[in-house]
Amino acid sequence: MSVLIVGTIGLDTIETPFGRKNEILGGSAVHASMASSFYAQTAIVGVAGNDFPKEYADLLKSRNINLGGVQIIEGHTFRWSGYYEYDMNKAHTRDTKLNVYAAFDPKIPDNLKKSDFVFLANLDPEIQLKVLDQLDKPKMVAMDTMDFWINSKRDALHEVIKRVDFVLMNDGEARQFMETPNLPVAASRLLKLGTKAVIIKKGEHGALLFTDGVHFSAPSYPQQMLRDPTGAGDSFAGGFIGYLAKSNDLSQENIRRAVIVGSVMASFNVEDFSLDRMRRLKRKEIIDRFQEFKDFSEFETIKPAHIKK
Amino acid sequence: MSVLIVGTIGLDTIETPFGRKNEILGGSAVHASMASSFYAQTAIVGVAGNDFPKEYADLLKSRNINLGGVQIIEGHTFRWSGYYEYDMNKAHTRDTKLNVYAAFDPKIPDNLKKSDFVFLANLDPEIQLKVLDQLDKPKMVAMDTMDFWINSKRDALHEVIKRVDFVLMNDGEARQFMETPNLPVAASRLLKLGTKAVIIKKGEHGALLFTDGVHFSAPSYPQQMLRDPTGAGDSFAGGFIGYLAKSNDLSQENIRRAVIVGSVMASFNVEDFSLDRMRRLKRKEIIDRFQEFKDFSEFETIKPAHIKK
Repeated sequence: MSVLIVGTIGLDTIETPFGRKNEILGGSAVHASMASSFYAQTAIVGVAGNDFPKEYADLLKSRNINLGGVQIIEGHTFRWSGYYEYDMNKAHTRDTKLNVYAAFDPKIPDNLKKSDFVFLANLDPEIQLKVLDQLDKPKMVAMDTMDFWINSKRDALHEVIKRVDFVLMNDGEARQFMETPNLPVAASRLLKLGTKAVIIKKGEHGALLFTDGVHFSAPSYPQQMLRDPTGAGDSFAGGFIGYLAKSNDLSQENIRRAVIVGSVMASFNVEDFSLDRMRRLKRKEIIDRFQEFKDFSEFETIKPAHIKK
Repeated sequence: MSVLIVGTIGLDTIETPFGRKNEILGGSAVHASMASSFYAQTAIVGVAGNDFPKEYADLLKSRNINLGGVQIIEGHTFRWSGYYEYDMNKAHTRDTKLNVYAAFDPKIPDNLKKSDFVFLANLDPEIQLKVLDQLDKPKMVAMDTMDFWINSKRDALHEVIKRVDFVLMNDGEARQFMETPNLPVAASRLLKLGTKAVIIKKGEHGALLFTDGVHFSAPSYPQQMLRDPTGAGDSFAGGFIGYLAKSNDLSQENIRRAVIVGSVMASFNVEDFSLDRMRRLKRKEIIDRFQEFKDFSEFETIKPAHIKK
C-alpha cells in the first residue's frame, strides 16, 4: 500500500543551542515523507518555487519519494525562520513566508487519487478539505494541524476532523482546541467530533493514542542527543503512516506498533538538523531502537500476595 | 520488612476547581504512610501540635500505621494553604506555617532504628541527615525534596543524595537542581552525585527511573477524575517503598513493578481530597488498576519485513 502526504515543502532557517543553519530543507511534507519512505512507497503533493534547490529535490528522489504531485511555480519556496531556547521544548517563530503556498490549490494527480494511506500534514484546513474531496476511497486518512488554524479556521477544522480516521495534535493544541487542561478529556471530545482515533504528541513525554474505549500510552526516548526538534511531529506521523501502509493492518495491536515506529523515527530526526540524521539512518538502527523502546517500558504484573488483605 | 517514613504531618487548606477544604489531614508523611500501609507495616516519625485532631490520628491508626515516633508538643500543627488553577499541574502556595516543625529535632525510637526500608519525605535536608545518622544499617533509603531546599540548602542536599539509594524528584526540580532542561542528562548528573537510582516524577506524564545503565519509563494513568493533586508525589513514594518492603526484592524487575505500584497509588490519591479516596480503596481496585497500566502500555515488537531493505 502506498502513502500520499500533502503538506509544506520549505526552506528553514533555524537556530538552536547547537548552531544556526540557513535555508535548509524542511517542511511538514518533507519530514513526514522522509520517515515514511523507510517503510512504504511515498508521494508528496505540495508546491515549491522555482528557487527550490535541485540538490534537495534529488535527496528526496534518492529515497524513492514520488514528487510527481509537487507543482513548481514561478516564485519563492515557502520559508520558515525560528529558534529554540535552552529547553528546546517550544519553537519560536521569527518569520513565516507562505510565498507559493499563499495561493496553493492542491491538484492530486490521477495516479495518486487512489492512494490508500493519506497524511494531511499541517496546512490550512480549507486546503485539507480540497484534498479530501479529490481522494478516491482511501483506506485511512490522518491529519495534523497547528494553533494558528485552531484560532483562525475552527469550523473548517471541525469539518476535516469529522472526515478523517486519525487526528494527530500536540498536547498544547489539543488542550486549546477542546478547551480543557485534561488530555484524556480533550481526546474524548475530539473523538466525539467524529474521528476514529486521536494521537496526542507530547514531545519529550511520549505520545497517547485514544480510540473508542481503548487507550495506549507510548513512552518517549530518553534523548540526550537533541540538536533540532524541527520536524519531530512530522517524522512521527510519517513513520506511523508509512508503517501502517506497509503492514496494511489496522488492528489495535498494529496501530500501537506504528505509534512506536513513529516515536522511533522522531527520536532519530531530532538528533540533527534538517534530514541530516535521517539520510544516514540504517534499517538496523530502527530495529535496535524499537527494541530499546520495548526494553525500557516493560514491566511484570503485580503480585497480589504483596498487597495486604 | 517494615517501612519508616519521616516527613510532615499537617493540616491543609486547599482550593481546587472542585471545591475548597479547610484544615484537612495532609503532609508528606501522612500521604506516603497511607499508601505504604496497603503493603507493609509502616511507621511515621514526625511532630504534631497539641491541636492535632484525634480523629485524624485515629484514621492513621486504623490503617495500623505506627505513630510511636510522632512527638506531640505544645503548639500548632504544621499548616499549608494553597490552591490549584484550572490546569491543576502546579500547586500555588498561599501560606506555609512550619509551627512545631520549626524546631523539629527527629528522634528515632529504638525499635524503629532498625527499619529496613526508609523514606525521607520532603523536609529540610539537615533534618534528613540527622535521621540518616540514627539509622542502623537500613536495607534501602529513598528521599524526596523540593525547590525550596534546592535553593536554600544545596550543600546539605548533596550530602543526603550521596547517602541514599533512591532520589525522588519531580521533573521541574531535577531540571533546576542539575541545571539542564534535559531530564536524562539531569538524572545522569544525579547518579554521579552518588545515589544508586533516580526516579523523576512527571505528574500527568508518568515517571522515569534511571539506574546505572538502565532506564525505565512508567506511563501515567489517563486520569479524567482529578479532584486534588496534593500528595500525589508522596503517595507515589509510599506505594513504591511499601511494595518494595513487602516483597523484599530489589531486582530491576521488582523495582519497575514498585514504580507502577507507586503510580497506581498516586492515581487513586488525586481522585479526592486528603485521604478520602485512599480510605475507601480496596485491594481489588489496586490489582485492577495495575492491570490497566499494563494493558494500556503494552505493544508488540516491530516486524523487520515491514522496513525497506
